[in-house]
Amino acid sequence: KKTFKIAVIPGDGIGKEVMPQALRVLEAATTRFDIELELSPIEWASCDYYLAHGQMMPDDWKSRLQGQDALLFGAVGWPATVPDHISLWGSLLKFRREFDQYINLRPVRLFEGVPCPLAGRKPGDIDYLVVRENTEGEYTNLGGVMYAGTEREIVIQESVYSRFGADRVLRFAFELAQARERKHLTVATKSNGIAISMPWWDGRADAVGADYPAITVDKQHIDILSARFVLQPGRFDVVVASNLFGDILSDLGPATTGTIGLAPSANLNPERSFPSLFEPVHGSAPDIYGRNIANPVAMIWSAALMLQFLGAAEAHDAILAAIETVLREGPRTRDLGGDASTTEMGEAIARLV
Amino acid sequence: KKTFKIAVIPGDGIGKEVMPQALRVLEAATTRFDIELELSPIEWASCDYYLAHGQMMPDDWKSRLQGQDALLFGAVGWPATVPDHISLWGSLLKFRREFDQYINLRPVRLFEGVPCPLAGRKPGDIDYLVVRENTEGEYTNLGGVMYAGTEREIVIQESVYSRFGADRVLRFAFELAQARERKHLTVATKSNGIAISMPWWDGRADAVGADYPAITVDKQHIDILSARFVLQPGRFDVVVASNLFGDILSDLGPATTGTIGLAPSANLNPERSFPSLFEPVHGSAPDIYGRNIANPVAMIWSAALMLQFLGAAEAHDAILAAIETVLREGPRTRDLGGDASTTEMGEAIARLV
Ligand SMILES: CC(C)[C@H](C(=O)O)[C@@H](O)C(=O)O
Ligand SMILES: CC(C)[C@H](C(=O)O)[C@@H](O)C(=O)O
Repeated sequence: KKTFKIAVIPGDGIGKEVMPQALRVLEAATTRFDIELELSPIEWASCDYYLAHGQMMPDDWKSRLQGQDALLFGAVGWPATVPDHISLWGSLLKFRREFDQYINLRPVRLFEGVPCPLAGRKPGDIDYLVVRENTEGEYTNLGGVMYAGTEREIVIQESVYSRFGADRVLRFAFELAQARERKHLTVATKSNGIAISMPWWDGRADAVGADYPAITVDKQHIDILSARFVLQPGRFDVVVASNLFGDILSDLGPATTGTIGLAPSANLNPERSFPSLFEPVHGSAPDIYGRNIANPVAMIWSAALMLQFLGAAEAHDAILAAIETVLREGPRTRDLGGDASTTEMGEAIARLV
Repeated sequence: KKTFKIAVIPGDGIGKEVMPQALRVLEAATTRFDIELELSPIEWASCDYYLAHGQMMPDDWKSRLQGQDALLFGAVGWPATVPDHISLWGSLLKFRREFDQYINLRPVRLFEGVPCPLAGRKPGDIDYLVVRENTEGEYTNLGGVMYAGTEREIVIQESVYSRFGADRVLRFAFELAQARERKHLTVATKSNGIAISMPWWDGRADAVGADYPAITVDKQHIDILSARFVLQPGRFDVVVASNLFGDILSDLGPATTGTIGLAPSANLNPERSFPSLFEPVHGSAPDIYGRNIANPVAMIWSAALMLQFLGAAEAHDAILAAIETVLREGPRTRDLGGDASTTEMGEAIARLV
């Protein structure tokens, strides 16, 4: 019997509503496939904790989590009381960096039964993977403000890339494309406008790509690439992008499949030196929190990706099949045009597993 | 009789195909409204010029253009022979900066007769303005590569913002929103991830917004904002964004209205200390160049925006009406599902004017 240690971190807002549904589904899947999960519920990494303690996490958060096999994460952020850059840099972005989860893998897929916001698209037409660099690039707190508070204020924000960081995510993406039927990789860039980092990034894509002659590579500027996610989604297979561009594409892609309430993500440390983290792409959604109407699928699918990463592929497949059935036959939450609650949708998926 | 001096800069690729159609339409409009245009055709600011001279423009480009009332610009870029960051930084981005065209105004609108890629949307459902900062921010060539060419390579790319630069574009956007019926302004941000510049940018939006109590302001992170351009386009009225975010949104927005072949832009120096520049949002499109199939509407609409800025509002309105008619009744280019050529579509619009 396989045993895994999982830290369960609901966070803020709808993170607290969708997490119980993921746990319900995990319970069903682990019973069926004879897996044991040792769950450690974590109250910190939340804005409530910040308001009580003046920091998002205890000082020894890293040692407390280091022994875990994975982190199952809801959503963090409550801008009404804690500025987003404080809550995120104090939790999620710390996990990604200090646990070196350098791959953020985000599947985008149109499901049967989910009304597509793009005209005339059917399941099969939208099915690709966004591979996002997750530890460096545009997300930094480096830089500063000069002449602060005066008319002459000047702000510098630095983006930082490394060959080490770029090559490993590019290589991961090439490998992924290699394992797929179409063997096509789109590289997001903006080398015409962002004149130092992006031409360099293009060069790294060429260098790493030299090892993968079977892959067709298409470099696209982020502006037209975003347009094509809407106009020609069938063009995409694997898409690799820097931290910021990957962030944008992995909200936009899921939007074209109906709702970002479906989109899961896996923040991976492929070497398993540190725990990986699994979380929905959506945020804490303060506007709908407390009404039990959030779509739990992104959270549940993230939990399935966790099982897959831990080696329990069958359990993953069973959960995904249950998600497919519920999306096709209902019950569905409001964002999908239904009127089911978060709980009802979670229960339905758990029952099918 | 009003006379205006216009520098005509076709540039590269389909820029050379759509420009003659804009000139054809301008000819019709100026005849009808008794305006005189003194056109100066410019061969430089093109990759052909670069290949012959080793630079995109002659050294005295600025003094040669300074006396013009406006620049009508096609598209620049031919990556097969000149890297994009060289061609763009040597031409378009120079114009924007050295002529201090700090507003990039990009209307997004769904027209009757244009098949919408979003399901169930009709004309009226998508109608907003993107106001893009056009001279600073993420587009810089500041930074560099350390340990270049080695495994330890580190790249720094600096974004630079100023209170001067942010406030003037924010103020322009607030004024624009003020003059519109809905009085709603969306501010693009990414203050949860980009920890220095974006929280600061949010603060400038608050500071400038204090002078506009009648405007409702909605700050949205660029990831979810992109998703909402697809899911809830009716939510938007005026959208203000930094240089990069504005670039992305102003390709994505037009994509949701059917094709980026329609989207015009006005690069404005509102004080008229320098000539303003009018250009399609689309690029030089090497993949379709030479076949006379490019959609000329973005170029023609840009020319109309130029007339409007120069004070010839009636001529603008007549061109826009002609565009509306042709989009509704044809002929239409391929990107719109028709089979007309660039020339046929241009002729049809000119005839109606
Ligand atoms: C060609 C490129 C540098 C330019 C930009 O990014 O500004 C273009 O995409 C645009 O939107 O005008
Ligand atoms: C909350 C935010 C910092 C985060 C990001 O931008 O990475 C989120 O949008 C995501 O995509 O996981």
